Amino acid sequence: MDARAFLRTKRDRGTHAPDDIRAFIAGYRGGEVHDYQVSAWLMAAFLNGLDAAETDGLTSALLHSGRVFDWTGLGRPSADKHSTGGVGDKISLMLAPLVASCDVLVPMVSGRGLGHTGGTLDKLESIPGFRTTLSPEALREQLDAIGLAMVGQGPDLAPADGLLYALRDVTSTVEFEPFIVSSIVSKKIAEGAGAIVYDVKCGSGAFMKTPEAARSLARRLVATSRALGAKAVALVTDMNWPLGGAVGNALEVAEACETLRGAGPDDTRALTLDLAAEMIHLAGRTASVPEARATAERALDSGAAWTKWIEMIRAQGGDPASVETPGRLATAPVVMPVRATDSGVLAGCDCFALGELVVSIGGGRRAKEDSVDPAVGLRLTRRRGERVKAGDVIAELHMATSDEAARARAEACFQVSDDAAAPANSLVLERIA
Amino acid sequence: MDARAFLRTKRDRGTHAPDDIRAFIAGYRGGEVHDYQVSAWLMAAFLNGLDAAETDGLTSALLHSGRVFDWTGLGRPSADKHSTGGVGDKISLMLAPLVASCDVLVPMVSGRGLGHTGGTLDKLESIPGFRTTLSPEALREQLDAIGLAMVGQGPDLAPADGLLYALRDVTSTVEFEPFIVSSIVSKKIAEGAGAIVYDVKCGSGAFMKTPEAARSLARRLVATSRALGAKAVALVTDMNWPLGGAVGNALEVAEACETLRGAGPDDTRALTLDLAAEMIHLAGRTASVPEARATAERALDSGAAWTKWIEMIRAQGGDPASVETPGRLATAPVVMPVRATDSGVLAGCDCFALGELVVSIGGGRRAKEDSVDPAVGLRLTRRRGERVKAGDVIAELHMATSDEAARARAEACFQVSDDAAAPANSLVLERIA
Repeated sequence: MDARAFLRTKRDRGTHAPDDIRAFIAGYRGGEVHDYQVSAWLMAAFLNGLDAAETDGLTSALLHSGRVFDWTGLGRPSADKHSTGGVGDKISLMLAPLVASCDVLVPMVSGRGLGHTGGTLDKLESIPGFRTTLSPEALREQLDAIGLAMVGQGPDLAPADGLLYALRDVTSTVEFEPFIVSSIVSKKIAEGAGAIVYDVKCGSGAFMKTPEAARSLARRLVATSRALGAKAVALVTDMNWPLGGAVGNALEVAEACETLRGAGPDDTRALTLDLAAEMIHLAGRTASVPEARATAERALDSGAAWTKWIEMIRAQGGDPASVETPGRLATAPVVMPVRATDSGVLAGCDCFALGELVVSIGGGRRAKEDSVDPAVGLRLTRRRGERVKAGDVIAELHMATSDEAARARAEACFQVSDDAAAPANSLVLERIA
Repeated sequence: MDARAFLRTKRDRGTHAPDDIRAFIAGYRGGEVHDYQVSAWLMAAFLNGLDAAETDGLTSALLHSGRVFDWTGLGRPSADKHSTGGVGDKISLMLAPLVASCDVLVPMVSGRGLGHTGGTLDKLESIPGFRTTLSPEALREQLDAIGLAMVGQGPDLAPADGLLYALRDVTSTVEFEPFIVSSIVSKKIAEGAGAIVYDVKCGSGAFMKTPEAARSLARRLVATSRALGAKAVALVTDMNWPLGGAVGNALEVAEACETLRGAGPDDTRALTLDLAAEMIHLAGRTASVPEARATAERALDSGAAWTKWIEMIRAQGGDPASVETPGRLATAPVVMPVRATDSGVLAGCDCFALGELVVSIGGGRRAKEDSVDPAVGLRLTRRRGERVKAGDVIAELHMATSDEAARARAEACFQVSDDAAAPANSLVLERIA
């Protein structure tokens, strides 16, 4: 591998052959290519671009740097969902058991909170005893037994992606679509899902702020997944309002439980069913998406999804009683009211600021090593589009200690307006198939 | 130092404040900024550019990473010359003693051969016993005593430049004008020269192939030198024909000695005097450049320059007898004739190919650790513009072993043409003051 020639190619706006990308990444893993060469390449690619074939080649190189699971021997189709991250996005907690209860394997590998967004692993760990680490053998056994597992990424899954991500983080080359795509898709394919549904968040609480950026990412996620042999669909969904009504780990688990028991906020339920329908259909269980949605609805309303959820919690060492009885999860000692600053219609929310606020009161991480307080967060008591008066309580801020500044920051996140359009019925802005 | 923010600035085509560049380089030296961050920055700067103020800032940061000599206490003005590198460029060997013999301090720091070009240190080491390493104290003493020293770059002179150069080399970011300028100027200013003359080579044997590239580099060298407090002038000079008639370390020292004794090829003598005139004038010794040239001519013809050369060789441990008696330097066991391939006028030379050929027969280095055979090289017996017949001997190839392929490569370097323009009287294409 001539790393200098490889660098020269991208420096001079050339195109890499997929084999050269593979050799470069393999050379990095093998110690022949150095991190200072990889970081220079990251910057060259960031500035001069990677085309679709190069993105697919990089994804394949990351994928094959580690173990690639294959669940076809288990005799059932498999599917998974990946969300690009939002505020209050607890969909995976309901979705995974729901789809698994419809006879589709769900080998879900999730991450921790990143920046202002929460992470599924952090949420699951609000359940006392729940283990998010399973050996490959235990993972296989559990999938065979109950068709569902929710775990963190093991060190042998796309390890080159971890190395590359660490370098991207310290060289300001994170926000580049081909890198984002290769990182996401390599891990999803490595976990062995045959069908992948992407939930690409768009808006103030998402990494993609505009529909154009979200649509472009959604298309490349789908195209690269297919190039690597998986079925794929993407939904672009609205993230200008916290999903459901809860933000914060234990608060979100509680909301997920309500939804799995047939209640819960309308938007959370609807988006869960929309994504479940895509997964079930993509996995080949039904002839159409509407048929798949009806199947999912029955599984949710019959309690089958809830039963699967409890089954999984038990299988992974969690205490089912902590979710079966409301109020048993961690609760914060201080709950402060958040009030409307004006009279009018609850029109919008700066979800990014709200996500940052929840991190700052202990609900997320600034650094990898930080621990997370599961009990803190914000719970909305009013909904988007509702008319409020100045001073009305619109949310509760759950905190470890009383903090007036945090309350003021929470209040400043919400916009009240007299001429706001009614919120859309569905969070789904676009479907990329 | 927030290295990520610094990288983001250049990634997004922003401009660095000089203080930020200083902090970045200081952070690198201090271990707080990592080589993988510096290499990503090198690529970002290469692709998005550095303006004049940023180039000056980088140069200053490299300069102040180590010791900065100051010879003003020695009571005489100081001057130096830097050449961007050519084939057969032995000018420094004559120029330094010549200018020193005109009562200007010459604290010359030189390098080794790079790629197809030779290096002054390699040439000096053809002189048995000659030491190119002096302690700072010994350097000061020698400059005080004889006004001249020719040494290699010590590890404490612009050490950050050495670190940066090593990273540029392995990340394909060498050929970028602001990096070239900062590397050259920081070292020249660090060695304490108050006046610097740049010989920017242009043509087939130079790193700058076109007059535009050479002129641009010359302007930035002069501007940055002035911004850092030194007087500076640049000459853009022709490098489409080997300078003088010898290429190879001992052969070049022999040619330098002829020139210092008042003989030698016309072009070598003329360019030496042109550069000496600029140095002497820039150092403030004369009121005009022509006056300085006359001074230099007298010093060359009177033998004063030769005497200074012998004085320096003795001061640095070399054996003066090896240069005083022609034929005492290392000689190659095999000398093969190089013949004209056609009849016509000797019109041009692929100096790059010729330089590479001399490296390949042992006269230069492929890697830092390689040793150099001082005896090998090529000596022209005919000159540019002379009429030759096919089969005429035009040069001698000096080699360790007989090598017909090398001879054929040497012959292919020279172009014979019937309608070649007569070569110009002067090698100086342009003066940038």
